[in-house]
Formats: sequence, structure tokens, C-alpha cells
Amino acid sequence: MWGMIATWRMAAEGVEKGCQILKEKGNAGDAIETAVREVEDFPYYKSVGYGGLPNEEMEVELDAAFMDGDTFDVGAVAALKDFANPVSIARRLSHEKVNSMLVGEGAEKFAHKEGFERKNMLTDRAKAHYRKRVKEVSQTLKPYSGHDTVGMVCLDSQGKMTAATSTSGLFMKKKGRVGDSPIVGSGFYADSRIGGAAATGLGEDLMKGCISYEIVRLMGEGIHPQDACEKAVAKLDRELKERRGEAGDLSLIAMNHKGEWGVATNIEGFSIAVCTEELGVTVYLVTRQEDGHCTMEVASQEWMDNYMKTRMAPIEE
Amino acid sequence: MWGMIATWRMAAEGVEKGCQILKEKGNAGDAIETAVREVEDFPYYKSVGYGGLPNEEMEVELDAAFMDGDTFDVGAVAALKDFANPVSIARRLSHEKVNSMLVGEGAEKFAHKEGFERKNMLTDRAKAHYRKRVKEVSQTLKPYSGHDTVGMVCLDSQGKMTAATSTSGLFMKKKGRVGDSPIVGSGFYADSRIGGAAATGLGEDLMKGCISYEIVRLMGEGIHPQDACEKAVAKLDRELKERRGEAGDLSLIAMNHKGEWGVATNIEGFSIAVCTEELGVTVYLVTRQEDGHCTMEVASQEWMDNYMKTRMAPIEE
Repeated sequence: MWGMIATWRMAAEGVEKGCQILKEKGNAGDAIETAVREVEDFPYYKSVGYGGLPNEEMEVELDAAFMDGDTFDVGAVAALKDFANPVSIARRLSHEKVNSMLVGEGAEKFAHKEGFERKNMLTDRAKAHYRKRVKEVSQTLKPYSGHDTVGMVCLDSQGKMTAATSTSGLFMKKKGRVGDSPIVGSGFYADSRIGGAAATGLGEDLMKGCISYEIVRLMGEGIHPQDACEKAVAKLDRELKERRGEAGDLSLIAMNHKGEWGVATNIEGFSIAVCTEELGVTVYLVTRQEDGHCTMEVASQEWMDNYMKTRMAPIEE
Repeated sequence: MWGMIATWRMAAEGVEKGCQILKEKGNAGDAIETAVREVEDFPYYKSVGYGGLPNEEMEVELDAAFMDGDTFDVGAVAALKDFANPVSIARRLSHEKVNSMLVGEGAEKFAHKEGFERKNMLTDRAKAHYRKRVKEVSQTLKPYSGHDTVGMVCLDSQGKMTAATSTSGLFMKKKGRVGDSPIVGSGFYADSRIGGAAATGLGEDLMKGCISYEIVRLMGEGIHPQDACEKAVAKLDRELKERRGEAGDLSLIAMNHKGEWGVATNIEGFSIAVCTEELGVTVYLVTRQEDGHCTMEVASQEWMDNYMKTRMAPIEE
């Protein structure tokens, strides 16, 4: 059995490329890196890689991570500017015994020395989004929305599992802000003996529950990925509301070492992309029921067409 | 009941100051911040705050965090240069709903705007250590040793619990390297309904097990802090050895909401400082038994005298 699951519709093309590698008995490290790079490279996804939205100083600062579930190798970068594929730098770092999480200028120096090419990641489209938002915020809208991290979990036919994330973080974030995505246990976790999980949503709140680690731990007790995701999201959502009066967006995906998978969210409008040996690449729309259970339906062609049209529509400033 | 527990002998004077606040019914936020600041300010402790050892570029880059166990407020800074008390900046950040973890230049900008004073944190003594190590490394010694993070857990008489950490990280680390100390769930965790935990050791390995979160979770199942620490350290140590052939240094402290406390380590020579309503400030030396259990004995006056003498001895270059 092999398979891959990812947060958001935007991951579908990447998942397709990654699963081609899995189908040909490639490994879960190559597959997930290929899949995430595809999302990073697509300029119209405004929360990951090239075309990602900038921080309040109009700089694109990127976070990414990679974890190998066999060896527990973890690599991560945060607040990294001007490199095309943060996930590849994170994977490279994961081979280091120490100094495997690097931030800011230090991460950029490492990447440069390792031969990664610099690239100006700020697109004209992202600048237009920035200018528009500055205008909106000065009127009435709140800053900080849009935090669609791509998070993936992958199982290959040799039984290796990996997890990876990549994001430009909260739009209009403060310079140097780090969310959950490069934080092991919060944004992602993988243990090949059990399974993996990855998150998207409000990083500051996802971190408070070490929620990706918790989901893998629950799967380790024999709980199905769907139940593990629902249980962990419901618990963190409840605890945050009890202690803080409100809970930010929490959306999680998981897959276990048998290729079974699950998803849970506390928001409307979450989507995922899944592919396994038995199931071609499929985009599901996730709906949260009142009791916290989540149901899924396959996205219609109309929804898919409309999605891409919206992403690529001209920006009215 | 109130109390405080901290990693390493170096925390003792800070714990004493913090416990004075607890004794006078002060809150666990003020007590732990005061305690950590004391360690940060002492120039002869070469792994925390002023006098902390520099990275490979001879820059002192500091990591710190603060967590409020009532509200789950978390604040953290990493790769921060030239501010005297990173823990206070972390605590200030913990009041932010978003942007509560900041790294590098962004963290420095925030601190400056908030009125924290810049301070050159590189001491002549730290420079002498650096020069000496460069010479040693060029002969035979391995780089990377010395990673004595101060980590603390605090319980006040109103039942609030906090956790905090502060460190200059691995000596000779790469620029921008982040260890476990500012990472919630790995370096620290606190839940006032259960308890708190904090870590010191090889950050890259501590992170692989989200070990502070795991210890708090175990205490939440009703397990005594001592057993929770031993169980979590033994498990992570075993898993790392199975998957990677070796495990880095892992040392953990914990206290629950009843003021019971515990400690576990996989190294020789770990020490802690504890103070509770019933127990004056006490330094314990921790010994790991072959079966993984850890025993403690109160540090002798001779040991205490020798400790300080060593810390303050001239550096032979």
C-alpha cells in the first residue's frame, strides 16, 4: 500500500506528481518533496512559495519542514526569504544531526552554501494583494486572514512515512513571525510505525496543543486516523474556547501506516487532496457537523473550475 | 501550595528570588520571569543570557519562551541578538493573539519598539571561550557541547502554572539555529489543570519526541511527575537509539498542580534546583540508574563551592 494526503485543493497537482513516484516504488521522501515543490512553484497560490503573500514589510518570509518517519530526521526553515523551494532546504537540513532547524539570515546562508538558487519570491500579483489589503485594513477589515499552509503526509510501498509543510504564513504577519508549520509536533509529525499528520490554520493556536504529535499518538493507540483527527481537533477547540473564549482555525489531515486516512476541521470550507493505491487523486470538501464529526464529499467539476478561476482572477485594486 | 523547579544548579539563585514572590502570594508569571532573568543576568553562566557562548560567527543568539498554563498564552523568541532578557520579551509576546513567536531581526525590531533595551551580550569571557574552542576544534575535540538551557516550571498559591526557558543554545551552533527551548511542547509546556515540564539537552533530539507535552499529558493521566519524566525520557531515549543508533542528552523536570515534582535524565551530572512551600531552595544531583530510574541526593556544600569556583575560574587560552 502507498498513499498521500494533503491539506487544501491547491495540493492536488502536487499529490498527482508525488503519487506517480510512489506508484513506481519511489520513496516517500522524494514523493513528498516533489509534491510540495509543485505547490511552492505555482504562482497563483498565495499562501505557499512563489507568489506567497508578504509580511507587513512587504517581504515574503517562508516556513517549511520535512520529517522522515523512519529515522525521526527533522529539518525546518522559518522566516526564510528569496529561495524557491523551502521544502527542499528543510529536507536537506533533516540530514543534519544538529543545526537542523535554521531561521532567517542563517537559513539563507546555509541554503546559499548548499547551492540552492536565490529567487525573488515576491510577485507582482502578491504586491497587488498587499496594496489592496493595506487599503482595506485602513478602512474596516481586520488584518490576518489567509493561512493556507500546504501540509502533506506520505506512505511509500516500503512502509516509510514522511510529513512536510510549506507556507508563507499569515498575510501581513510581523517580520520574523513563525507559525506552526516549521514546528515539529504542531505543524507536522511522522512515525513510520504509526502514521503521520499535518496541520493548517492559525499557527499560534495549533501550537498550543502539539496537535500533529497528538494525532499520531492517538493513532498509535490503534485509533483510526479519522477518529484521531476528530478527537484531537474537538479537544483543542474545546480547550481553547474554555481558556481563551475563542479558538482559531484548526484543520488537520492524517494517514496511518496502512494507508488509512482521516481529516478534521473546526471551519467551513476546508478541502483536501488524497491519493492511494486504490483511489486516484481526489479532492474532497470537508463539512463539520454540529457534533464535531466531519463528513466529506468529492468536489464537483463546477467547484474545481470555479476554484481555479477565482485564484487566477485579476485583482481589483 | 506553591513551588518552582528548574534545570541545573545555575537556577538556584533565580529560584530563590522567584519563590520569594510566590511566598508573598505573587503570581507564577512574575515569579518565573524574575527567576529566569536572574540566570540570564549572571555573566558566569555560559549557556544563558549575558555571557552566553556565541555561535560559529561569534554572535550570541538567544532563544527563550514563556507559557501561561491558565490561558495557554505562549510567547517565544529565537535567534535574538543583543537584548538582556529574552524571557521578558517572550512573556510580552505571549499576550499577543498572533505573531507571538518571532525570530531574528523581526524579534529584535519588536523588542526595540516595545522599549526593551539593547545590550551587547558578548562578554570578554565568552570571547575567550570562543577562541579557546576554535583552537581545540582545530586540534581534535568535537564542536557542539554545552547546551545547558535554564528551564523552569512554577505553581503559585492561586493555582496558576507557568513554564519558561532561556538559552544561548549550542556553543558554536550555526547562525540561525533553533533548538527545543523556544518550541512549545518540546522545550516547555504548562497546563494549570495538570502541571508543567521543561527540557535541557540536545534540542534536535528533544524535539523529535515533543517531550515536554508528553510529560504533561502523562501527568494528566494521573501519573506522578517523577514517573512521567522517567517514562517519557526512557521512551524517547529508546526510540532514538532504535531508529538513529544513538540518543542525544535528554534531561527533563516537571511539577504538577499539587506541587509534586519529578526529574529524569539520560546523562551523568544533571542537577536541578527546587523550592516549594515545604522545602527551602535545594539543589539536587540526579543519578540515572541502569534501569532508567533516577535517584537524587542533595548537593553537598563542597560540591556547591566547587561548582562556583569552576564557573568563575580564569580561562586558560
